[in-house]
Amino acid sequence: MENGRASTKPISQVTCTAPVNIAVIKYWGKRDEQLVLPINPSLSVTLSQDQLCTRTTVAASVDFKRDRIWLNGQEQSIDTPRLQKCLGEIRRLARKRKHEEERSGDLLGCCVHICSENNFPTAAGLASSAAGYACLVQSLARLFGIDGDVSHIARQGSGSACRSMYGGFVEWTMGRAEDGSDSVAKQVAPAEHWPELRVLVVVVNAGKKAVGSTEGMQTTVRTSALVAYRAEHVVPSRQDDMKRAVLDRDFQAFGEITMRDSNQFHATCLDTYPPIFYLNETSKQIIHLVHRYNRHHGKVKAAYTFDAGPNAVLYLLQDDVPEVLALLKHFFPANANNDSERTFVRGLPDVCRKDVSSDLLDSVGLEPSPGAVQYIIHTKAGQDPQVLTNPQQALLDENGWPKKQN
Amino acid sequence: MENGRASTKPISQVTCTAPVNIAVIKYWGKRDEQLVLPINPSLSVTLSQDQLCTRTTVAASVDFKRDRIWLNGQEQSIDTPRLQKCLGEIRRLARKRKHEEERSGDLLGCCVHICSENNFPTAAGLASSAAGYACLVQSLARLFGIDGDVSHIARQGSGSACRSMYGGFVEWTMGRAEDGSDSVAKQVAPAEHWPELRVLVVVVNAGKKAVGSTEGMQTTVRTSALVAYRAEHVVPSRQDDMKRAVLDRDFQAFGEITMRDSNQFHATCLDTYPPIFYLNETSKQIIHLVHRYNRHHGKVKAAYTFDAGPNAVLYLLQDDVPEVLALLKHFFPANANNDSERTFVRGLPDVCRKDVSSDLLDSVGLEPSPGAVQYIIHTKAGQDPQVLTNPQQALLDENGWPKKQN
Repeated sequence: MENGRASTKPISQVTCTAPVNIAVIKYWGKRDEQLVLPINPSLSVTLSQDQLCTRTTVAASVDFKRDRIWLNGQEQSIDTPRLQKCLGEIRRLARKRKHEEERSGDLLGCCVHICSENNFPTAAGLASSAAGYACLVQSLARLFGIDGDVSHIARQGSGSACRSMYGGFVEWTMGRAEDGSDSVAKQVAPAEHWPELRVLVVVVNAGKKAVGSTEGMQTTVRTSALVAYRAEHVVPSRQDDMKRAVLDRDFQAFGEITMRDSNQFHATCLDTYPPIFYLNETSKQIIHLVHRYNRHHGKVKAAYTFDAGPNAVLYLLQDDVPEVLALLKHFFPANANNDSERTFVRGLPDVCRKDVSSDLLDSVGLEPSPGAVQYIIHTKAGQDPQVLTNPQQALLDENGWPKKQN
Repeated sequence: MENGRASTKPISQVTCTAPVNIAVIKYWGKRDEQLVLPINPSLSVTLSQDQLCTRTTVAASVDFKRDRIWLNGQEQSIDTPRLQKCLGEIRRLARKRKHEEERSGDLLGCCVHICSENNFPTAAGLASSAAGYACLVQSLARLFGIDGDVSHIARQGSGSACRSMYGGFVEWTMGRAEDGSDSVAKQVAPAEHWPELRVLVVVVNAGKKAVGSTEGMQTTVRTSALVAYRAEHVVPSRQDDMKRAVLDRDFQAFGEITMRDSNQFHATCLDTYPPIFYLNETSKQIIHLVHRYNRHHGKVKAAYTFDAGPNAVLYLLQDDVPEVLALLKHFFPANANNDSERTFVRGLPDVCRKDVSSDLLDSVGLEPSPGAVQYIIHTKAGQDPQVLTNPQQALLDENGWPKKQN
């Protein structure tokens, strides 16, 4: 047992959960790599933590010899630039506030232990870094007694993490300041503003991982002739239109802008040299399904968006969930040797089953692709990061060491 | 037998062949649908007619009761706007020249018979309309004794057909005149200018045909926020760079611009609403293959381009053909039940076989996809439309009726 485990000195510990967010106006491209400043504003929906979240416990003790981090049960190097940036910024802020407010700064000399887990497979490509850095920064801010917005710190861990610092509908302003202080996340509307909105995360069976998003967006900014035009001349008005659509709960506008912006983001990836492809054949089938579904009904009833991978995220209204789920199950049935239907659709309590008309099936007219979709997560908009006060929910024990796995 | 077949009056008849062309700066989008005026200039390579061409015979006789057309053995309606436009423009020009030059205008009162065939499958998606309209217009111009450039007439049949009126490297100028008279094709350099250049047409096994190019480009111009920027701010300088690359026989520049422009054209298709996808998984694999092949050699030795379909056209230099063919055969082998290798690669006389190093195979590192490629046509740059004088090569008999199929 390492020195420190047997300590009887009190340690400080905080546990938080933080949500995933899915952008409807996409972030792709930095104007400052160090400060993680984007080339355009973006806007996202924070998803409920009941289905998808990261949980993180941070502890500080004079007995800890060095900062350490455990992710999903494995110790990882703490010496990555992004982790160091977040830790450094939190400590700098804590030091500054101690000085300004004459607070106690007992923890400033302490090393920290960090333990973090996702309640969903990291490999699923579900933007886990946003939830992860949001949770880390939120936990550390609480531990060091920092109040107020710390989204600019989360941003420096992973750009889109700043948007996971708020619940509901969140914009990340581009900012103009050189130090990045005005490139922060702001809530546009709380989750309760649009209670009927639902989200289906369609996890697609993918081959090996394509280009990572950090490298991908660097290459796009360096080589695409279109991405700067998008950032300067397309996104700003789209961002305004999207905010209006959210505030008006105008699903027609919300859905159409969401799809157009996803497509344009992937268009700039294709305009990259060498080109980057994130959509696979299943992604394209889902895109066709959604457009044909909407055309069948004569209006936008479902909208897709894709991040840096083949998984689709569908936005839709509560009343249409049974029909869209039935369509997805019809055209992307689970493999025969797959689990039961309950595990194929996960998340919110089962919606009533819906039989789809043969008219609608004909309108969609795809060849069914068994096994192309792994599973579907049914969720909705949700809250900002939460503090868990029950020590049983902490990932570190009372001495600040990872609890034994069950 | 119809009236007219038994006629003994002399008829006028002309047979021509015309080439396919493959753009390296893409045409996508019209600023005038009626006149077929493009939103940007484009540039293409005219391919040798030894491998890919259309043959057309036109005949005029006072005995013909109406204009008629037979395509690939089937009579088709002559009453399509594009055919009528070409016929009308040719007759208008013939009338004008008769008036100006006091020529004989005997044929002006005659109806015409048109018979046309491709020496390649139309279904292969090999831009047959460009060769088809070029051949039609060339044949009719000869028949009616019209000299000089008639690319503006071919353009009104199918935009890219104007580029098939010249051999070698051909630009289609955008033009500014309202009547479209300055939106014409011009030769940048003859085929002999760059004798080492080779072309591999990789015919991919595709599912059903995606959106046609006429409809596709209309939707792109109407809905893409990026395509106007491409046309106005990206293509003009690219066109200049490409002309310079051709004149300098600079394969590095030629290849890189070709790939970037293909990707950007497909990016604007993806930015269309609803999005248009022409590239399939095999297309993407070929793109990866080419980039990895070039990276392995530290320079651009092969370049891909894709039109409105999944087939790849590769440009490369003669010396690299054996290696690239070997790579294509390795990663896209013919199906076991497919024909022999000789029919898998068609066209220019067989190049010496080449063994590919395991290093190179590792660098490319794709999973082989048997059957994904149907066959490959090995060809090069070629000449403008040709007149065939041997009556045996005509598609109409001495009375102007389609010859019996063998």
